[in-house]
Amino acid sequence: MKWSEIGGTPCSVARALSVVGDRWVLLVLREAFMGVRRFEDFRSRTGMSRRVLAERLTALVEEGVFERRAYSDRPERFEYRLTAKGRDLYPVLVALLNWGDHWMADEEGPAVELVHDPCGATVHPVQTCPRCGQAIDPRAMTPVLKRDLRAT
Amino acid sequence: MKWSEIGGTPCSVARALSVVGDRWVLLVLREAFMGVRRFEDFRSRTGMSRRVLAERLTALVEEGVFERRAYSDRPERFEYRLTAKGRDLYPVLVALLNWGDHWMADEEGPAVELVHDPCGATVHPVQTCPRCGQAIDPRAMTPVLKRDLRAT
Repeated sequence: MKWSEIGGTPCSVARALSVVGDRWVLLVLREAFMGVRRFEDFRSRTGMSRRVLAERLTALVEEGVFERRAYSDRPERFEYRLTAKGRDLYPVLVALLNWGDHWMADEEGPAVELVHDPCGATVHPVQTCPRCGQAIDPRAMTPVLKRDLRAT
Repeated sequence: MKWSEIGGTPCSVARALSVVGDRWVLLVLREAFMGVRRFEDFRSRTGMSRRVLAERLTALVEEGVFERRAYSDRPERFEYRLTAKGRDLYPVLVALLNWGDHWMADEEGPAVELVHDPCGATVHPVQTCPRCGQAIDPRAMTPVLKRDLRAT
């Protein structure tokens, strides 16, 4: 199967990956969640080439993850703001950050820490069950298949 | 910057992406969390080519995400089991699933549902603060930069 066909499968993971299953996209999102909005800032902070960055930003605007807004008329300049759909990707980035901090750390410790403003704590957010509040253990989760994941 | 250099940056997100920032890898992990362990099952369920699948599995074994274990001597056959490091990627997959269910669903509803065994509820796990227990809102999180993310 080609990747272009995967987005057509009924699996939500595969559909999500058709938009964000790309390391450059996820690096751009990391910067967006750090407050970056402008092309040149994305470029200098990620080290991406202009071509690759422009391509990814265009695709993310088409998918509704970013909204492209003019912030200057002369010269015409645009910024890229996360939409609600884009902000909802935050848990994906946090999950990657947590995993990297835990399994790929070096002796200098994390490069970025997250402070939860309402309580002031520096935290690694955890996934919990919205019904009972317990922390999620993958071995205590049963995936129930409703449809064949390959069918279109 | 080339992607091969990104894994050397101090950012945990980038380091995580150097291992799992690839849609095929994430699709393989999806299957592993559904209980798949054998090459032929990964292949038939994802539609990946043998070459791409073999390459990804080898890399994931090298990274310590899977452990490769013989389950048959004649013929010699191996299975791929998630290690603790691999199981810790579950929140990444769940976050992608949640996002796909919410933003890329079709009228037939989710193809996979998750049941939290201890309480029996079908759920979309949520990220919460381990200190105060509140659900995480990205706008209530402040990233604190400890080091330049580009430095090596």
